[in-house]
This record gives sequence, structure tokens and C-alpha cells, in this order.
Amino acid sequence: MKRYRTLDYPVDEVRRFLEPGPVVLVSSAWKGQRNVMTLGWHTVLAFTPSLLGTMISSGNHSFELIRRSRQCVINLPTVDLLDTVVGIGNCSGAEVDKFERFGLDTTPAHDVEAPLLAQCPASFECRLHDASQVKRHGLFIWEVVKAHVAKVPKRPRTLHYRGDGQFMLSGAEVSRRRLFKPEML
Amino acid sequence: MKRYRTLDYPVDEVRRFLEPGPVVLVSSAWKGQRNVMTLGWHTVLAFTPSLLGTMISSGNHSFELIRRSRQCVINLPTVDLLDTVVGIGNCSGAEVDKFERFGLDTTPAHDVEAPLLAQCPASFECRLHDASQVKRHGLFIWEVVKAHVAKVPKRPRTLHYRGDGQFMLSGAEVSRRRLFKPEML
Repeated sequence: MKRYRTLDYPVDEVRRFLEPGPVVLVSSAWKGQRNVMTLGWHTVLAFTPSLLGTMISSGNHSFELIRRSRQCVINLPTVDLLDTVVGIGNCSGAEVDKFERFGLDTTPAHDVEAPLLAQCPASFECRLHDASQVKRHGLFIWEVVKAHVAKVPKRPRTLHYRGDGQFMLSGAEVSRRRLFKPEML
Repeated sequence: MKRYRTLDYPVDEVRRFLEPGPVVLVSSAWKGQRNVMTLGWHTVLAFTPSLLGTMISSGNHSFELIRRSRQCVINLPTVDLLDTVVGIGNCSGAEVDKFERFGLDTTPAHDVEAPLLAQCPASFECRLHDASQVKRHGLFIWEVVKAHVAKVPKRPRTLHYRGDGQFMLSGAEVSRRRLFKPEML
């Protein structure tokens, strides 16, 4: 699988990649254990600080690694990883080493213990900003503390899950910049 | 603009339309006032009850209508409404009647005061489920109490915002159903 070389990227611009709603791969690490999960339930919450919300069910093996470490990396897979993304979502880290099974290459993150996935063109290191809704809603509110993005492709082709095994692939890009008030951009 | 005839749709399946991350139009009504806003910051939170989270900044004219009424309708616009979606996001209901300015046709909702937008092929009536994070994060947690979806198109072509006036349009649909464990569908 292709590996990307990434560069530092402004954390307040991660919306360029996450706001369109792609499936992401969340990597985690805690006390020598690590795991990766497929996630479709996330939203941008703020630019500065750069906040994201993710809904992670306690039924996932990653849940305790994430909750205890208070860290994760949100990685952006592209369409060539479709079967890997589905595979990761259909087995449990309690039973298999997903990194080994799916041949995932990792590189160390800068600010967190969870690894970056080298086969993803964008990875966002996150620290837990607000744990108050974890118990009630499984909702983790993250601050993106460091972002890594490959220069090419400029617009990675992403996967968008509908449930029931069905994915939408990202399509054409269009600009309506000229219709925006400057303060709305 | 095209008007859709919608049918009742199971509220626990609204993820089919929202989980891929489209821009939505949120309509609201309170004490004779009404408004509509463009929103890109939302996530699915649960199937049963059918819960959604939306981040709505207090700077929006809709904020008080939504907060006080504890209701809204989340409408799904398609690519033919791109310029309307941008227009709605670039003016304020404090200054203009957006329904009039953009020629929006409305129909009454079943369970809430906010109107359905007839030019959208899917509309989801929502009641506020949890207001505890509104003040801190602008995060409204909604229960979808009634869903309306047109039979055609089966997969509406949706708009996905990246910021900076740039939109991704939804592309091809692919199934990987055969790779899923039955309990993961």
C-alpha cells in the first residue's frame, strides 16, 4: 500500500478534510497496547482551539484505550483503502492485532502516544478536551494539537459511510467563493 | 425549483442520509418568527432513540429560535440548490426573510412548529433531547421524532462543505456489504 510523506498543517484548518464527513481511522495506544478503529460519527466543533467531537461506543475495544489515555490520532483513509477500512471495522482489537493483519505502517506521532497511519494522507493528533459527555453519549470532545497532511493529493478521494455496507465516494469539487461575504470564508 | 413529495421514513435510518456528512438546511420557528440556516457541523450519535448532534453558534439569528423552541427541522438540500445553500448561509434572518428571498416552499411539519422545506428530498423533525452542552459548546443533542424522505432520487446528490467557499459533491456509490459481519450492518 502507498505511504505518504506528510507536512505540518494548520490545526485550525482540519475542517477542509473532516467537515465533508469522511470515514476516519482512529488509532489509540495505552500502556503498551494499541488499536485502530473505523469511525463515521464525528463533527467539527470549533476552529480555535481546533475542537472535534467523536461518538465512540463503549462496545469498541478502542474505547478503554482512548478513554484512559485521553489521546488518539484521527487518520483520513482514501478510496484505495476501502477494503482495509471495512476489514478494520469488522474485527476487534481484543482478538487480532489489526496493524499486523492489515499491513498498516505506522510512524510515531509528535504529541501523543497513538501512532500515525502512514498509508493515510492526513493524520490529526488529538488530546481530550472535554470528557463530560463520554459516559452519557459516548461523545469525546477533542482538541487537535498537531496536524499532518500530504501535499499531494490536494483533495484526497474519501469514503463516506451510509450504514448497511454502503459507501458514498467523494466526487467533484466546486467553488462558490465569489458568492461568500469575506467574513464568512 | 423542484418540489418533492416525501413519505414517512424510519427515524432510526436517518444515518443513510446524514452520516456521509452533507451540508443541511436547519429550519426553525418560535412565537411567529421563523428562519433557516446552513449547517455543516453535525454528527449521528445514536440509532434508538435516533439522536443527532449539531453545533450551532450563538452568533446565528436561528440560535435563539432553536434554543427557545427546543425544536428544528433538518432538511437535506441537493446539488441543484448549491447557490441557494450558499445564499442562505451568507445573510441573516435578522435582516431578511430568507424564505421569501430564496423562494423556499414550506409545508407544515407533523410534530414541530418549524417548517419542512419542500425543495429538499429529505427532512427530519427534531426535538431537543439534551441541552446541557449548548452553553459550553453550542452543541444541541436532538432526537429525530419524524422523518420524511422522497422515494426518488434514492441517493440524492449532496453538498459537502470544506470551508473557504469550496464544496465537495457526493460521488459514486459502492457496496461492500459482502465483507460485513451480519451484526455490523
